Amino acid sequence: MKIGMIGLGRMGANIVRRLMRGGHQAVVWDRDEKAVALLAREGAEGAASLDDMRHRLDTPAIWWVMLPAGAPTEQTVAAIAEKANPGDIVIDGGNSFYKDDITRAKALAEKGIRYVDVGTSGGVWGLERGYCMMIGGEKEAVDLLDPIFDTLAPGLGTIPRTPDRNGENEDARAEKGYLHAGPAGSGHFVKMVHNGIEYGLMQAYAEGFDVLAGKNKDMLPEDQRFDLNLTDIAEVWRRGSVISSWLLDLSAAALAKDQKLEHFSGHVADSGEGNWTIEAAMEQATPVNVLSTALFARYRSRVDHTFGDKMLSAMRFGFGGHVEMPQ
Amino acid sequence: MKIGMIGLGRMGANIVRRLMRGGHQAVVWDRDEKAVALLAREGAEGAASLDDMRHRLDTPAIWWVMLPAGAPTEQTVAAIAEKANPGDIVIDGGNSFYKDDITRAKALAEKGIRYVDVGTSGGVWGLERGYCMMIGGEKEAVDLLDPIFDTLAPGLGTIPRTPDRNGENEDARAEKGYLHAGPAGSGHFVKMVHNGIEYGLMQAYAEGFDVLAGKNKDMLPEDQRFDLNLTDIAEVWRRGSVISSWLLDLSAAALAKDQKLEHFSGHVADSGEGNWTIEAAMEQATPVNVLSTALFARYRSRVDHTFGDKMLSAMRFGFGGHVEMPQ
Repeated sequence: MKIGMIGLGRMGANIVRRLMRGGHQAVVWDRDEKAVALLAREGAEGAASLDDMRHRLDTPAIWWVMLPAGAPTEQTVAAIAEKANPGDIVIDGGNSFYKDDITRAKALAEKGIRYVDVGTSGGVWGLERGYCMMIGGEKEAVDLLDPIFDTLAPGLGTIPRTPDRNGENEDARAEKGYLHAGPAGSGHFVKMVHNGIEYGLMQAYAEGFDVLAGKNKDMLPEDQRFDLNLTDIAEVWRRGSVISSWLLDLSAAALAKDQKLEHFSGHVADSGEGNWTIEAAMEQATPVNVLSTALFARYRSRVDHTFGDKMLSAMRFGFGGHVEMPQ
Repeated sequence: MKIGMIGLGRMGANIVRRLMRGGHQAVVWDRDEKAVALLAREGAEGAASLDDMRHRLDTPAIWWVMLPAGAPTEQTVAAIAEKANPGDIVIDGGNSFYKDDITRAKALAEKGIRYVDVGTSGGVWGLERGYCMMIGGEKEAVDLLDPIFDTLAPGLGTIPRTPDRNGENEDARAEKGYLHAGPAGSGHFVKMVHNGIEYGLMQAYAEGFDVLAGKNKDMLPEDQRFDLNLTDIAEVWRRGSVISSWLLDLSAAALAKDQKLEHFSGHVADSGEGNWTIEAAMEQATPVNVLSTALFARYRSRVDHTFGDKMLSAMRFGFGGHVEMPQ
């Protein structure tokens, strides 16, 4: 198939590369002309503008937007809506908030334009490993795009089959690494929860390694202190343990490089989906104690002392004269 | 090598089986005579008592205790200490609290008996997959037992090597799935933290799926409700996503069998190590917000309403006349 890719950052460019490897054609545009030129040298068709892209695409045209969530995506989808023909499909492959998808899908539907949201996981590894994709939109549009998703997905690969999958009420595409989750917005919703879970998993590993690292503290009785080799512990857990995972593989690699992690500040950012997952949980009154705790731990990581910490010091000083180095 | 196995439950019996498959010999004892007879038919040497076992073992004798933590293990190790000769090695392969290991190792050392603690992960899958083992004890004893650990471990297998492992300050055994963590107690300590992490990981997945399952609640605006197929979502996340893991594999299998999980009550037990991890964290003042939250979520799962919930209802009633169906 032929797709138009708008946004040639790391994700967009690699998606184009994987599509071309799979025999698809791509028309590409980015505000950075160098990014366009680079992919043109690799076999893509460079477009000079969205108008130019429109002329180079088939009917229906497939517009894949791969830009940062928020204003960049919003403005670009609106610009495409001006140029697209009825029957065209606009794909948002970024990390949009799922409610924005619902709004956009409705607005585009009024012009007969179809909207598909694709949440992708796999990051920089996707080009080789394939992209895990969670897709929202009308069945007809998603089915039409199937050859594209099939190429981008990891495929059956070497991952062992899940026992008891019997096809009843199950979508065989899930075993290739992509999923039609439901109507517009559902793809990004599932991806959002995926990231919420990711925050919780990461924090669980982080705290466990923190306990291991702190087991040699002076405050412990001498015969209960251990100097543990975190690199080897991460490695051994990768092999046959209940907590083996891809995140643990990454952790083991980081520790093998530098067990002290001295090149990392420990100031932890978040990309939005963790927060949105908590918001979604609140809207439906679902308790997410660990996921919210993991998010709050990231906020906490960004300051030396919170104002709350100072309040605690002030109260302790007030009621007992406890002096905690007031400045 | 020849080992004596005391305790032929699921773990003990399968460890004996894997050892025999690897060419080792085993003398076995259990208070359940049938369990002894069963393994004797499979090629082990049945012992009638600990005394009998002692006569059947080599010098130094290797005693592997595989019993529930606490009194059963404590009493058995004490009984073996009465019968063992200096130079013998006593292995506790159960889930003992690491401070008990430290105490026992000291007591046995006074008699010249060596003590090795082995934390194992892998559960019922260990017989085929191999056991991931975290080992504590004196180097000489652990090295002497190496052929046994080598047989029990998963081995290099098909798991990709961790980049940047260069052998400097690293133990090659970790890549086969076992680890000499440090002195007595350190094996069970590392296994304990492993389980603490496991609680956090499990709770993160659980909460994420809870958000997905609740996305069709009536309380949500109609155009923001999704009926999501959790079985397919778990499956797609196994394939190329950042949150793929062995626990997710298990989750996918459970959902494929019954997406409603109707055969599970949701009353969640804990086996002790989760609690001990929190205790250890408190002793060294390491914040473990997610790990403790995951443990508390299990406590919460065991009651319909806590007394604390009733206190909240009572206070709400008191200050605002909010009636929450008082009984």
